[in-house]
Amino acid sequence: MSAADGQKIAMRGAGYYSANTVGAKYVIDKVGDLVVKAVAAMPRLADGQPFAVADFGAADGGTSMDMMRRLVGAVREREPNRAISITYTDLPHNDFSTLFRLSQGLLGTSTEVPLAETPGLYIFGSGTSFYRQIVPDNSLSFGFSATAMHWISTRPCMIADHVQAVGATEAERAQFRAQGLRDWETILLARARELRSGGRLALANFCVDEEGRYLGHTTGADMFDSFARHWRDLARAGRISETEYVNATFQQFYKTPDEFAAPFLNPASPVSQAGLRLENIFTMVTPCPYAEAFRVHGNAQAFARAYVPTLRSWSETVFANALDPSRPAADRSAIVDDLYGAYEADVARAPEGHRMDYVHCVTEIVKE
Amino acid sequence: MSAADGQKIAMRGAGYYSANTVGAKYVIDKVGDLVVKAVAAMPRLADGQPFAVADFGAADGGTSMDMMRRLVGAVREREPNRAISITYTDLPHNDFSTLFRLSQGLLGTSTEVPLAETPGLYIFGSGTSFYRQIVPDNSLSFGFSATAMHWISTRPCMIADHVQAVGATEAERAQFRAQGLRDWETILLARARELRSGGRLALANFCVDEEGRYLGHTTGADMFDSFARHWRDLARAGRISETEYVNATFQQFYKTPDEFAAPFLNPASPVSQAGLRLENIFTMVTPCPYAEAFRVHGNAQAFARAYVPTLRSWSETVFANALDPSRPAADRSAIVDDLYGAYEADVARAPEGHRMDYVHCVTEIVKE
Repeated sequence: MSAADGQKIAMRGAGYYSANTVGAKYVIDKVGDLVVKAVAAMPRLADGQPFAVADFGAADGGTSMDMMRRLVGAVREREPNRAISITYTDLPHNDFSTLFRLSQGLLGTSTEVPLAETPGLYIFGSGTSFYRQIVPDNSLSFGFSATAMHWISTRPCMIADHVQAVGATEAERAQFRAQGLRDWETILLARARELRSGGRLALANFCVDEEGRYLGHTTGADMFDSFARHWRDLARAGRISETEYVNATFQQFYKTPDEFAAPFLNPASPVSQAGLRLENIFTMVTPCPYAEAFRVHGNAQAFARAYVPTLRSWSETVFANALDPSRPAADRSAIVDDLYGAYEADVARAPEGHRMDYVHCVTEIVKE
Repeated sequence: MSAADGQKIAMRGAGYYSANTVGAKYVIDKVGDLVVKAVAAMPRLADGQPFAVADFGAADGGTSMDMMRRLVGAVREREPNRAISITYTDLPHNDFSTLFRLSQGLLGTSTEVPLAETPGLYIFGSGTSFYRQIVPDNSLSFGFSATAMHWISTRPCMIADHVQAVGATEAERAQFRAQGLRDWETILLARARELRSGGRLALANFCVDEEGRYLGHTTGADMFDSFARHWRDLARAGRISETEYVNATFQQFYKTPDEFAAPFLNPASPVSQAGLRLENIFTMVTPCPYAEAFRVHGNAQAFARAYVPTLRSWSETVFANALDPSRPAADRSAIVDDLYGAYEADVARAPEGHRMDYVHCVTEIVKE
């Protein structure tokens, strides 16, 4: 595990009940309302078949655990003896041990009965990417995903003078968009094979919404512009090379609601032909818990000290990996420290407008 | 992860194709012959059902991967389009990331197509102990386990003047035996619920065989006696306390073939009542690859340097955890180093007879 991976995971573990996950958990809890309603309307399974749930891109499973309890409750309310399986999926290097320990109540501070001790509930992990089929044909009852499918399967090009597709040139953004749309179709077709008839997906994904808002770009400072500006300052100062500047490119694309909906609008599309129908789509903005806390406490230094490390936890690897691998490790660390140090000083000096609001597009999809 | 865990995992990863796993892999390959025959005789599944395989106590899955290929091949030979699932189970702190990476060909040096790229094959991990039900009722086609079920679910007492039940007093050993037999019933009843009708288990477990042989006790020096003697020397020298000496007790019990068979011989036992039948049982001794290599190279120093770290990789935690937790970490490390240092000096001085031969009992079980 790289140091950066370790930091990412440490953030998740240590921050389980902290403000850090309040936003992510709020998104999932909101999707939970839909899930409970959807389960009540689903066709029953044949005797002996488990109600199979999957969480695609689950990380350590912490933020979705309350929703999973509700989902399990909703299934059991209709069918008290129905076996249920939950398959948590993520990339192979994901921290599955933390996931299994959390679900077994061996970590965290929940006073509830551990999820894994629910009778007739079976919990699995899968290290298979959601760009491939993960469970057998026609076996999945309910698929769920939150804040995961903006990671595209490959980086089509480097973004020359920014770090994320939101700040790319039109030509660069077109390449990221094409990859994002191909990936969305790949994801949906894999899920179409997995879902049983009447099975459903509830997906909450980062997006660019109807008003042009996206993660860290709602009111005030644009988070990705801030990253790009501080990274450019390091290049200007000769601290990093132009190649290193260019190589810091997030492998992400934020689709619009129209782009999420497109495969469903065309009855001849592979997604429609595979039997998937879009039942519901809407966007939502979840306020940044750090900026909201700052509105209460008003301490700019404290806000900067809390806010920037949060950004660092999920963004640091992009900058660290952009640096020439021949640099000594200490030098690479120092450069990354300089980047976040400049960002933090910036926030402490002028805190207003810095906020990482989440902007999600929720889709509810059914397989006929 | 503790340093000891880290060392254990490092041993597994680094030693994947080394002499270290030759013995364990030989055991599994032998069981593979039975598995291929058994699959050919199994009743077919209903359309749409996957052929579900589980590996109970799989660690990183490396030693069973060739056997899994053969198993998958045997299923597909009969039914080319049958979906197959493999669920690898172990304790939550197991290194599931290495397991997923190995099966996806992201680690190791195999030139074969990665197991996970077999069409229609779905790979899962479970962090649920094999003392509990892991997959839904009547869903398992084939259960497999190698060198895992000698770990008992709880330690009934400390062994006052030895480290393993093989060297315990009669009264102590009776308590370990009672726990081991209860655990065996628990394991079998959980598997009975999981297995479909006609489903099978092939289990290769450490045992005390018909001639009284067990792991490290075949010809020559008894491995567990050596551990106990060097640990006692540290107590005699005042290096560890008497309590620390006593606390080094392996949470293990090696059953005899008669003990493995007992639940099946009584038609009124819960295991028989659950529909399990013992079809085949035999023992086998797998030679220690280190001692065999020493017979060829004859270098006692080199043998000791290779042999003792292998023992250390799976035994160290027992001694480290026996030490008073108030000792500084460096002191605990130094004591454990002293133990293995003394063992290594012993082997280098008098290498003949030191050998960790594996002694297994293989059971083939079918659910009616």
